[in-house]
Amino acid sequence: MAKIKLNHQVALDKKHTRMTKPSLQVILTPAIAHLYDMKGSCVVVVDILRATTSMCFALHNGAKSIIPVQEVEEAEVYRLKGFAVAAERNGIQLEGFAFGNSPFSFTPAHVKGKEIVFTTTNGTKCIQKAKDERAEKILLGSFLNLDALIEELSNAQWPLFIFCAGWKEKFNLEDTLFAGALVASLRDYYTIEDDSSEAAEDIYKIAKDNLEQYVQKASHSKRFDRLGIVGDAPFCVKLNLTRVIPELVGDRLIVKKT
Amino acid sequence: MAKIKLNHQVALDKKHTRMTKPSLQVILTPAIAHLYDMKGSCVVVVDILRATTSMCFALHNGAKSIIPVQEVEEAEVYRLKGFAVAAERNGIQLEGFAFGNSPFSFTPAHVKGKEIVFTTTNGTKCIQKAKDERAEKILLGSFLNLDALIEELSNAQWPLFIFCAGWKEKFNLEDTLFAGALVASLRDYYTIEDDSSEAAEDIYKIAKDNLEQYVQKASHSKRFDRLGIVGDAPFCVKLNLTRVIPELVGDRLIVKKT
Repeated sequence: MAKIKLNHQVALDKKHTRMTKPSLQVILTPAIAHLYDMKGSCVVVVDILRATTSMCFALHNGAKSIIPVQEVEEAEVYRLKGFAVAAERNGIQLEGFAFGNSPFSFTPAHVKGKEIVFTTTNGTKCIQKAKDERAEKILLGSFLNLDALIEELSNAQWPLFIFCAGWKEKFNLEDTLFAGALVASLRDYYTIEDDSSEAAEDIYKIAKDNLEQYVQKASHSKRFDRLGIVGDAPFCVKLNLTRVIPELVGDRLIVKKT
Repeated sequence: MAKIKLNHQVALDKKHTRMTKPSLQVILTPAIAHLYDMKGSCVVVVDILRATTSMCFALHNGAKSIIPVQEVEEAEVYRLKGFAVAAERNGIQLEGFAFGNSPFSFTPAHVKGKEIVFTTTNGTKCIQKAKDERAEKILLGSFLNLDALIEELSNAQWPLFIFCAGWKEKFNLEDTLFAGALVASLRDYYTIEDDSSEAAEDIYKIAKDNLEQYVQKASHSKRFDRLGIVGDAPFCVKLNLTRVIPELVGDRLIVKKT
């Protein structure tokens, strides 16, 4: 009798889980973010080349926290106060700042124990947008922390938005590719019904056996070539270098406590 | 000597052609259309399920012209003047109008020789948008006229935008799929550098061997299922049923003269 009750309970729990699966949606560019209601959701901000990759790596290498800011002027104020500041626009490190947006800059020697202020062309704006829209939880995703992030997100508590930073409001390939990697692993835990998720997953399926080669055809990789930025794109598709998940707490990104 | 000159001339011409290839870009949703400069370009409006498919089919079946309008109120004025009017919102034919948006409605018996007024959820708005942005040429694309359209566009004279209507400003799978079919065939004639085109082509590569099956996973196909709309989606991916290319001339879509 106890056994029957147990099975019945398990069946009910499973059914309950199925019926209450939260939704997962992919936002392909910030230009369409207003079409989605992020309030009370979990938002994973994705800017593979390079903001969220570099932020994951900086925290992995011992940075105390990251303060994302939208405007260069704001970053400049922090610089004058003595903060270590990363400032990038159009792929290029701005003059006078300690860092650009290359992950290779954020080595333990340069970041350990520091609070780093960060402003970039696309990624930092999405973090602010998710905050303005009152997301419940804001995390950063990159290939560097993919598996850790999947484990975290498979404990589905809130509706999930994978928020691709794109390039100047336009769609980009590398963020969509990463969104697809998440979709492919999270189908059992979420209700996925939007076309953006389907497209992202299909792109991931095409690319997954050789991410480095695939990401070469992204327009931002070609921009790197023109700028003489070597090695960043291949590094940004390296899988699972860290278990660190950056989470926005107040105005700062810190290592998510597990 | 004459031969040498000829070869030299051919080489120059080829180089000239290469250097002056116009650009091709895919606009994935109307929400980001403002990021592109359509002035002086050729714009192919794509709303596979179902506006541009139905419009192609209506002109193929002998409709004299199609008058696209944005608002139902405007369509109502035409109806009162005695025009045959197609009016759809959210997949459903509006009450009191002659047609909805199903291609099966636009048979020769119903359309031959007629001017048909058309308002739909997504497609007609994009036609107006391209007109407002002063595109040089506005054409309609669908799988029904794919090869005819590719032939037309391979005579590349203007920068080309493939303008996906999407669903209520969001990305959709079926329009992107069609954009990918165009990209796959037009690489030799255009400079293609945007990530949207790359993604669209990759989706087309995945889908091309069974378009009907692929399009089933589009959210709009699932909407059709819920609404009991049977057969429309499979029809809308049928290839090359017509050589007709609808072109906007003034306020009317007519069969493009070749």
